Amino acid sequence: MRSDSLEKGGKIIPFPKTDEKINPEWRLYGRSTSDDKGGVFAILKAFDALIAKKISPTVNIKFFFEGEEEAGSSHLQEILLKHKGLLKSDGWIICDGPTHQSGRKQVVFGVRGVTTVEVTTYGAIRSLHSGHYGNWSPNPALTLVKLLDSMKDDKGNVIVKEWNNDVEPLSQSELQAIKEAPQYDEEIKKQLGLSYTEGSSKSLLELINLPSLNINGISSGDVGALARNVIPSTATVNLDLRLVKGNDVLRQVKKLKSHIKSQGFYIIDREPTMEERLKYPLIAKVIHLSGGYNAQRTKMDLPLSLQVIKAVQSASSQPVVKMPGLGGSLPLSIITDSLETIAITVPIANFDNNQHAENENIRIQNLWDGIEIFANLMTMK
Amino acid sequence: MRSDSLEKGGKIIPFPKTDEKINPEWRLYGRSTSDDKGGVFAILKAFDALIAKKISPTVNIKFFFEGEEEAGSSHLQEILLKHKGLLKSDGWIICDGPTHQSGRKQVVFGVRGVTTVEVTTYGAIRSLHSGHYGNWSPNPALTLVKLLDSMKDDKGNVIVKEWNNDVEPLSQSELQAIKEAPQYDEEIKKQLGLSYTEGSSKSLLELINLPSLNINGISSGDVGALARNVIPSTATVNLDLRLVKGNDVLRQVKKLKSHIKSQGFYIIDREPTMEERLKYPLIAKVIHLSGGYNAQRTKMDLPLSLQVIKAVQSASSQPVVKMPGLGGSLPLSIITDSLETIAITVPIANFDNNQHAENENIRIQNLWDGIEIFANLMTMK
Repeated sequence: MRSDSLEKGGKIIPFPKTDEKINPEWRLYGRSTSDDKGGVFAILKAFDALIAKKISPTVNIKFFFEGEEEAGSSHLQEILLKHKGLLKSDGWIICDGPTHQSGRKQVVFGVRGVTTVEVTTYGAIRSLHSGHYGNWSPNPALTLVKLLDSMKDDKGNVIVKEWNNDVEPLSQSELQAIKEAPQYDEEIKKQLGLSYTEGSSKSLLELINLPSLNINGISSGDVGALARNVIPSTATVNLDLRLVKGNDVLRQVKKLKSHIKSQGFYIIDREPTMEERLKYPLIAKVIHLSGGYNAQRTKMDLPLSLQVIKAVQSASSQPVVKMPGLGGSLPLSIITDSLETIAITVPIANFDNNQHAENENIRIQNLWDGIEIFANLMTMK
Repeated sequence: MRSDSLEKGGKIIPFPKTDEKINPEWRLYGRSTSDDKGGVFAILKAFDALIAKKISPTVNIKFFFEGEEEAGSSHLQEILLKHKGLLKSDGWIICDGPTHQSGRKQVVFGVRGVTTVEVTTYGAIRSLHSGHYGNWSPNPALTLVKLLDSMKDDKGNVIVKEWNNDVEPLSQSELQAIKEAPQYDEEIKKQLGLSYTEGSSKSLLELINLPSLNINGISSGDVGALARNVIPSTATVNLDLRLVKGNDVLRQVKKLKSHIKSQGFYIIDREPTMEERLKYPLIAKVIHLSGGYNAQRTKMDLPLSLQVIKAVQSASSQPVVKMPGLGGSLPLSIITDSLETIAITVPIANFDNNQHAENENIRIQNLWDGIEIFANLMTMK
């Protein structure tokens, strides 16, 4: 059943013609097909398959499915601590995120942390006619533009003070693993229509081991058919901060707030009063949105780490990619810290799954491979 | 019937208690109540009143109502030229815009021109997971932020090259009229909750005689409840350019395009092709939205100008404010150029009418005064 079409020579092969009833290159489209219904489905089907084939697992298995991960996992720690005894284990194997861009399977030993901050700037208490007041009444969108521009340089590097200061450097074996991993930057750039990338020509694998500051969305007034000639009353940006080992959620948000303050802003966590509006030229409502967690990294040479690599390798004809850290975020530090355990991530989704965006999808072959991988993990030696 | 409550001592008086059936301080709320149903209504009711009272107008009256003004008046010139003979006149009296912020009546001899430009910047061809690609894939919102920041300095002054170069300076009598006009900047700032204004401490009346560049709206990705951790694929800004006497719509847009080009952008007027995406790091789709017109200014000492001032003055107990130029825009240059005539604007709406924004309204007293003013104009000597 398994086709290695995506893996042959590391090249992406277009949808092949085939006589098979279900073409493994087909994709299932739908919200969360890859992230994370695909993973949940692969795990459950692997377990079903073992039962059907009367194969006994070689390890004790405990399933844990987190339904709040995309919403900040705000109740995870409480649940973990409440059931600490029940959840005791040698380690957690997590199924989330994409396989390597080359199509090769990968085992991931760490993930970025994440948290989200919303910043709102203020103009007049109401929208104003841009003719009668344009040039005179401050425009909150321009205020926000100037604030955001101060956070990153022309290369896209974060220039918020001390942003990278507490980053724990990668070990020699982790650097080596990154070096050995296939480098698909040029291929991905071509697919995404990018003529350049941020970060002073560092590679994607290097850059995801640095903390990021990204504009998820910005909004003020209206554009397109709804646009009107007004000076908007507020402007809002949603920023996501990705964290790496060494960063801390609260410390990182504090750096951001200190930066906003250093740009002359009076910071509040609610709408400004009239008195505040009349007193402070620059006001920023800074909301640290609920949730968020630190990065996590498990050593690559532990016995369990080596067993997992072996199990995943046995479901693949190409060498498995060993990745010290994935770009995406999972609340793994909450798990490893609360339960004093380790976590290793085994992703199964195709890298071009449009996770979190329109047309999210999972490739059928990736789903099939995922089932095989998890069956191997449940019977690993 | 007429109450001068808004005019007494030039102070704004809160809604008074009154036994009158219709309180003149009440307001009618609704889209375009002030801009421009209020004006149309005042003119028609003034004419009805003259007929009812059997008073003959002292001037020949031609009515002209433009229904496309808020959409760029793209057919106005065609209609004017087609009916040039029918529309022959000594001058046009226009009813649009607000009375002075002090509540005093005003006669306006000029208006700003206006045009709108939409600029879109590009990241990858699809939205990307901000964890997997954040720090690496360029963010179009950041690209747009950097472009917009390059257009205005920290004081809000436009720093696009040659932006103000072709501005026709105000005459001595126009400067004098501005000087004599009540200065309500501090009062308005208090009402709007502003602790400062743009433009290096110039007054509002001075600044509306300079061309503006205003962000009407900016949008990329989502904020609030819809925000997701993505790198958006595009970012769009809607800019309105207000023009003063001497500026030209096409020349002003050309200056803006030259500026965008000078910031390293490849400019197109449609979506970029894959080839263009892979060739040009910075791409801006710049759309000069349809419509737009130049500013207009009529001399304040012409016989008709003096007659209009007199007619408006006779409907007011306070001295009429004479304004060389209003901040808002009307397609008056199309009228004056096409028909080789002059135009004088007599606004009636309360200044705090929220024109073009939520809760647009007209104060009842302003409507009543408007009817009286236009009856006076129809019977002026």
